[in-house]
Amino acid sequence: MYALAIHGGAGTIARAELTPALEADYRAGLQAALAAGRRLLAEGAPALAAVEAAVICLEDNPLFNAGRGAVFTHDGHHELDAALMDGASGRVGAVAGAREIQNPIRAARLVMEHTEHVLLGYPGADELARLHGLPTQPADYFFTQRRFDQLQQAIAAGRMQLDHAGSAPVVDANWKKGTVGAVARDQHGNLAAATSTGGMTNKRFSRIGDTPLPGAGTWADAEVAISCTGNGEDFMRAVAAYDVSCLMRYKGLSLAEACRVVVHDKLAPVGGEGGLIAVSAAGELALPFNSGGMYRAWCDAAGEERVAIY
Amino acid sequence: MYALAIHGGAGTIARAELTPALEADYRAGLQAALAAGRRLLAEGAPALAAVEAAVICLEDNPLFNAGRGAVFTHDGHHELDAALMDGASGRVGAVAGAREIQNPIRAARLVMEHTEHVLLGYPGADELARLHGLPTQPADYFFTQRRFDQLQQAIAAGRMQLDHAGSAPVVDANWKKGTVGAVARDQHGNLAAATSTGGMTNKRFSRIGDTPLPGAGTWADAEVAISCTGNGEDFMRAVAAYDVSCLMRYKGLSLAEACRVVVHDKLAPVGGEGGLIAVSAAGELALPFNSGGMYRAWCDAAGEERVAIY
Repeated sequence: MYALAIHGGAGTIARAELTPALEADYRAGLQAALAAGRRLLAEGAPALAAVEAAVICLEDNPLFNAGRGAVFTHDGHHELDAALMDGASGRVGAVAGAREIQNPIRAARLVMEHTEHVLLGYPGADELARLHGLPTQPADYFFTQRRFDQLQQAIAAGRMQLDHAGSAPVVDANWKKGTVGAVARDQHGNLAAATSTGGMTNKRFSRIGDTPLPGAGTWADAEVAISCTGNGEDFMRAVAAYDVSCLMRYKGLSLAEACRVVVHDKLAPVGGEGGLIAVSAAGELALPFNSGGMYRAWCDAAGEERVAIY
Repeated sequence: MYALAIHGGAGTIARAELTPALEADYRAGLQAALAAGRRLLAEGAPALAAVEAAVICLEDNPLFNAGRGAVFTHDGHHELDAALMDGASGRVGAVAGAREIQNPIRAARLVMEHTEHVLLGYPGADELARLHGLPTQPADYFFTQRRFDQLQQAIAAGRMQLDHAGSAPVVDANWKKGTVGAVARDQHGNLAAATSTGGMTNKRFSRIGDTPLPGAGTWADAEVAISCTGNGEDFMRAVAAYDVSCLMRYKGLSLAEACRVVVHDKLAPVGGEGGLIAVSAAGELALPFNSGGMYRAWCDAAGEERVAIY
């Protein structure tokens, strides 16, 4: 028995903008990533390998805001955040602000397995990846016309101007958010979580979000694995992923109830739009979100597969 | 009624190396920082102002590994991490890997108050600080002979060589650790926490530790405020600071019991050497550590002041 869930980001996801052709592309992308992870789990591979494979597949797909499809920063480059955590050992690795690594989730695994550290920032994460022979890419690999247009729109609208005191955050999920992630329970009962993102379009000042922070956007232990997507700052202030674990472990809540409390009772009231995917040691899945939609797919313990957006 | 606790790092603190003159300097430094925070609390200032003032005082003192006295990275510069959190509002700001900011804790407050973000990395944190007129300093401001000698020793011993797979961490608290922090409960019953560090001597690859991560090294909510010091990676994997809060809130543990569970039951068995300081809304203090010593000082709700090392 094994279980796997993946997400490709949560947000408003305006139905008018999601043409049937684009929706079919998103669904195919999710399907392919789910299949990549599922294949490994079916063979008896560790949960860690499955979540990494699924996330690599999403990072390589320019539709999703991670790896190749990462959004542009204000300065016109890309800053990639990723984290990966192994529930059985409690080991975790992460990178923040990487600019050249083709698959940031592979760099996160490198940090976990080949250093005594948890989180490497810019420029060290790229340097370590190069030293270990991970593929890097020039800036044009990460260029997509759609993301570049989003940057121009964001700049024109003056969004993400961090240096203006008191400016209210602009809530527009389609340009602001986007993350990919996976959680798995393998045949041996072990759990793992992985998350990767390009962050916010037009972000400045080397902003680091919740994705690479253990406990905020990514978490795995012996009981539960979680990957989050949404308004990163709200997830950081809520320590959202670890909170799910604490509600289960210390308060005795079920997986579904713990996820509901975090996503709907805690995050939603403070504007923490988004969602998360979670899997328990028993193989139960939860994929709650408080936004208009969340790109997601899962394969439950009974072997049933689903892809959904709204 | 108010309460305040500060720390200047935890570790082995070899008694042979701590001459009476040096010990007197450490005690005087802790005393001065405690006084800076206490003065504000006595006047009715918010906990946030008190913890910031205490940490600025420690950052300006070359004895402590934060701000001016920050340890050297492998490349011979300094990478400064800091975070500050306001329990009443849940707001938090942090910087990671800053190289020029004289007082990183002031930059953390800037992030909290003048951006919609939580954490800024390198080089953006320095850029934002300059834009807002925070004092920056050239590299020689952060030069201290003692730290430079520590770097040469660390390089000679081949410590902190992240790129060698499987190398066991070298446990030697005096060169590896060092952090400063403060927690306060003000006369209005609000809590705040602040933490600042130069990280590990000879660190490479833009390593980011627990200090600037909300929930790992720093946390404050309506019930408890916490600042940690020790083997950062273990504190990150344990989400140590937020775990204290969860054990109190979800499991009903007392402040002392929650701190004991985290420091002695969870961190110590996995090599997570160090300690933390915590204050509750009722004004109770806890300053547990599992290392040889922790530079610390406190002023309890009854107005009693203490400075201690072992």
